[in-house]
Amino acid sequence: MAVVFSHCLYSSLSSSSSSSSSYLSPSLHSSKLSRRRVLSISASTTPFHMELHNEGRPKFIEFPYVSAPHRSLMSDLVSMVETHFDSQLLPCTLPPDVQYYQNQSGTSHASLHIRSGHVSSPIDFILGSWIHCQLPNGGALNITSLSAYLNSSTDSPNFLMELIRSSPTSLVLILDLPPRKDLVLDPDYLQKFYEDTKLEAQRQLLEKIPEVKPYFSSSLYIRSVVSPTAILIRIESEKAERMEEIIEDHVGPVAKQVLRLWLDKCASEKREVAETERDYLQKRDKLVRTKTIEIDLASSLPRLFGPETAERVMAAVKEYFSA
Amino acid sequence: MAVVFSHCLYSSLSSSSSSSSSYLSPSLHSSKLSRRRVLSISASTTPFHMELHNEGRPKFIEFPYVSAPHRSLMSDLVSMVETHFDSQLLPCTLPPDVQYYQNQSGTSHASLHIRSGHVSSPIDFILGSWIHCQLPNGGALNITSLSAYLNSSTDSPNFLMELIRSSPTSLVLILDLPPRKDLVLDPDYLQKFYEDTKLEAQRQLLEKIPEVKPYFSSSLYIRSVVSPTAILIRIESEKAERMEEIIEDHVGPVAKQVLRLWLDKCASEKREVAETERDYLQKRDKLVRTKTIEIDLASSLPRLFGPETAERVMAAVKEYFSA
Repeated sequence: MAVVFSHCLYSSLSSSSSSSSSYLSPSLHSSKLSRRRVLSISASTTPFHMELHNEGRPKFIEFPYVSAPHRSLMSDLVSMVETHFDSQLLPCTLPPDVQYYQNQSGTSHASLHIRSGHVSSPIDFILGSWIHCQLPNGGALNITSLSAYLNSSTDSPNFLMELIRSSPTSLVLILDLPPRKDLVLDPDYLQKFYEDTKLEAQRQLLEKIPEVKPYFSSSLYIRSVVSPTAILIRIESEKAERMEEIIEDHVGPVAKQVLRLWLDKCASEKREVAETERDYLQKRDKLVRTKTIEIDLASSLPRLFGPETAERVMAAVKEYFSA
Repeated sequence: MAVVFSHCLYSSLSSSSSSSSSYLSPSLHSSKLSRRRVLSISASTTPFHMELHNEGRPKFIEFPYVSAPHRSLMSDLVSMVETHFDSQLLPCTLPPDVQYYQNQSGTSHASLHIRSGHVSSPIDFILGSWIHCQLPNGGALNITSLSAYLNSSTDSPNFLMELIRSSPTSLVLILDLPPRKDLVLDPDYLQKFYEDTKLEAQRQLLEKIPEVKPYFSSSLYIRSVVSPTAILIRIESEKAERMEEIIEDHVGPVAKQVLRLWLDKCASEKREVAETERDYLQKRDKLVRTKTIEIDLASSLPRLFGPETAERVMAAVKEYFSA
């Protein structure tokens, strides 16, 4: 199971990120658009395409395989992000067979939903996903995630949340605002985004629950990518009811508060980023994405969905992560 | 007690470091020496000075206030370092009243021992210390530490170890090779010093002990400075005998193995460091020191030893940390 856990950290494939346009030279930053962004814009002005590309949305937002409190939390979080950014988010332009896919035997199902930010917004893209895999023991693995990535018009942290359930009494939670700079070299950044926001208090709220233990990712790179206030916990409850209570009363409120802090303090404004600083951000963001795709997706997707589907999904994801 | 803990993390004042000469321009790096290094060299060639400056050593190496297994571990670690570097280490040139000091009422005692590396070695300096403070409840706080800092002729990680005992049944252990680069930007560095060395296996050995819990420093900056395989644990045992057993059978072997790895893989050779890279190392090392002195020493020393002694010790330490 540990292997499945470590390789199924689906959204941690993307613990940090930047705009696809961030790989263009700074002077081209606002004037040139990558293929997937052009697709997004044409989709938003072409009703037929919009409908085509958005058809996976109901399936995504349904979170069909998880418990009611789990589903309700995910749906609330997606709604908070979409309400906050509203028209700044373009419709999802992923091909329908990437928005929803399954393996040949029908034991693994997944949904992926990515919405790019309008070129004038600090959002690069928002990624939501769920994976459901039947397990040989009769149980199921369910992973739901929501991540948000800012572009290089700002150096603010990204948002990352993932819930991993390998049974009704087991939960791994990854909840963080991964920094986009070396915190050791930038104490002001640490102060602004991690101390002044009192993120540590949120981490401590969950740490106090008796069933909570720390979670260590098997990847040292992923451990390096998260912030010093990252919530990385494993919860094992005696009964399934208790786990739903923990999600409803503790995980939910903390996740919403962390997302609120991110919306208010990180994603609310463009910051002035100098050109040299932008080069640094682009380099760091790009490295994080390349490494995390390599760590997470490259080995787990083929295993869960077969090589053909894995290749199709990987290619679509890379449009955003390695553009 | 939590406040005392967080501010008494004596040697974590220095979780990373570089040579005093690192603050000279690169071209002067090998030819010009700071005041404290000149003192070191003159001490090593002047028997009178050597004797004067080394007189605190017996008191330091005695670790007089801690239990036998604790003392034996510290003494073994100091001996491993001194044997490995041998003539590369110059004698301690700290003033006698910094090598050993106490507060006016005689309830707090401390020893500090710093040995610079020879100018031709990759060692900047080795710092050992112990602090003993009587507590109002009749107990005592004992902190022992050993740290080793490489200069900017290499980018290899430093060594950091600290044992904090606030009672015979309580122990906080900080044991790490703090990186000197942003690991997110340098996966090869992460691979070489943290994955290939299998440091994670050492962390897991201690994590398995039932009495072990994770320890979170109250300083987010200190959390950012340590590596993804850092051993940051709090141990609470029911009986004092059990704690001594844990130190002897578990903490000791792991600490020695981590130090061995550091001696073999990090401190054994000078590496080729390009000039731009050296500027980066010097900047990062300097920031880490400044911040950590500010976090740890500036508030705890005056409280434990009075303002006058604190000022004297701080000034001497800054010769090494902010030179």
